[in-house]
Amino acid sequence: MAEPRDPQAVADHVGRAMLAGDAASSGLGMQVEAMGPGTARMSMRVQPHMLNGFRICHGGYITLLADSTFAFACNSYNQLTVAAGITVDFLAPAQPDDVLTAEAREISRAGSTGLYDVQVRNQAGTLIATLRGRSHRLKDRTTVPE
Amino acid sequence: MAEPRDPQAVADHVGRAMLAGDAASSGLGMQVEAMGPGTARMSMRVQPHMLNGFRICHGGYITLLADSTFAFACNSYNQLTVAAGITVDFLAPAQPDDVLTAEAREISRAGSTGLYDVQVRNQAGTLIATLRGRSHRLKDRTTVPE
Amino acid sequence: MAEPRDPQAVADHVGRAMLAGDAASSGLGMQVEAMGPGTARMSMRVQPHMLNGFRICHGGYITLLADSTFAFACNSYNQLTVAAGITVDFLAPAQPDDVLTAEAREISRAGSTGLYDVQVRNQAGTLIATLRGRSHRLKDRTTVPE
Amino acid sequence: MAEPRDPQAVADHVGRAMLAGDAASSGLGMQVEAMGPGTARMSMRVQPHMLNGFRICHGGYITLLADSTFAFACNSYNQLTVAAGITVDFLAPAQPDDVLTAEAREISRAGSTGLYDVQVRNQAGTLIATLRGRSHRLKDRTTVPE
Repeated sequence: MAEPRDPQAVADHVGRAMLAGDAASSGLGMQVEAMGPGTARMSMRVQPHMLNGFRICHGGYITLLADSTFAFACNSYNQLTVAAGITVDFLAPAQPDDVLTAEAREISRAGSTGLYDVQVRNQAGTLIATLRGRSHRLKDRTTVPE
Repeated sequence: MAEPRDPQAVADHVGRAMLAGDAASSGLGMQVEAMGPGTARMSMRVQPHMLNGFRICHGGYITLLADSTFAFACNSYNQLTVAAGITVDFLAPAQPDDVLTAEAREISRAGSTGLYDVQVRNQAGTLIATLRGRSHRLKDRTTVPE
Repeated sequence: MAEPRDPQAVADHVGRAMLAGDAASSGLGMQVEAMGPGTARMSMRVQPHMLNGFRICHGGYITLLADSTFAFACNSYNQLTVAAGITVDFLAPAQPDDVLTAEAREISRAGSTGLYDVQVRNQAGTLIATLRGRSHRLKDRTTVPE
Repeated sequence: MAEPRDPQAVADHVGRAMLAGDAASSGLGMQVEAMGPGTARMSMRVQPHMLNGFRICHGGYITLLADSTFAFACNSYNQLTVAAGITVDFLAPAQPDDVLTAEAREISRAGSTGLYDVQVRNQAGTLIATLRGRSHRLKDRTTVPE
């Protein structure tokens, strides 16, 4: 059976296969809302074990959602790509039971380097955090089996 | 009973009280190895639920440890301080069962703004990631009860 | 004479007055192409004294253009605002005589903190660099005289 | 005549040759105070043309000094290396005629990627800004002729 080569189909396939294999993301209840070439949208509910001492979501868990969404977006071409670095700005707190949605888009992709922006919003549309990620593509390796 | 005013004693007190109240950090098995004025050292074992699809520790969990250590360090004076932004560089993968230790130190503190560096190393001393964090101190509030 | 209160007029006024007073930006031949509430677009030609040893524009001069554009955008409301930190990613080299255009837009503004994105492109539209800037607004001070 | 292979001698040679060929850095009056394997220390006086509308040094010129020092440090092995990205935090203003000294040191170097920290201080030792830089080494090319 031939593998889909359509970029959208490849991205959809990567999204499903990455989530299935990614214990960290699936273990936190993350869901893949949408995939595309260079893009991903993922969501996660803020659970009690994610709260810090101020009874708001630990910034690390917000980062985890943003970082996963970045990883899914930069792997959407099914070329194995890793995160080299991220810059995260925290703009508003996330409360218990908030449903956070992270949307990643590609700013640049040249050679083995990619640059991505991720915005994390709550269910009211409030911007909670932004992530800028730099990715590094490895040579001649797929992210998931075709 | 009088509160300890010695900066080291304050930092030790903050470390214990923050960890006790921080479901996110304690729930991941983080331990506070040392506290001081402007510094913190914390450790965490890489557990199966932290692995991504490449069978290495999800960068978000490495960030979580580094971000917690940053938070503990910038709150070590028991003045309520929040993370404004972080920059993380991922340098080497963390493997299952690795014990990661994050060490935070203060670069600058002026007005309400602080700047901190965190280095995350594995049990062999390999540098896994670095975090640079910018903090914002709120006015006239303690982090934990004196 | 009454001061214009229209946000666009305020931004235009700030752009003119800031450039006139800013020896660093005007000395490099920067021009303000457009101003708006939370936005700015500025341009600069790559001159011989901006070249590094590789005969391309020194990254610092690209940053200077991006940083000025960020400063103009975050001061566009005529409330004195300073840069707290920037993250710059260099994506492609800028050549001698290239005309670089930087476009800044506001991502977030809450309390005294703002977050801005700047993209620097050459005359062919190639993305040369991106800057993410965090700003801090001072209380009750204008940037330029009304 | 054989080329010096001693790492310190190589770094010294690179420092001299880079500065001689770098119109941007030398044109601002930058001086190389010290070079070493993975390190550099450079200084620059704040001149009138570097001032912004607040009559302090434009952050872009502070960044220029820090970025040059980063470039010199990551090229100190005479292996051609370019800046991929920088994060700069501005901590205190630099005044007219201040002499700024930037000191760069290597945090990590693995494969083609390096990570460097730069601290910029004035003549009183006040920390003015910090830069964290990520570098990318090109294959099989020297920075300056041996």
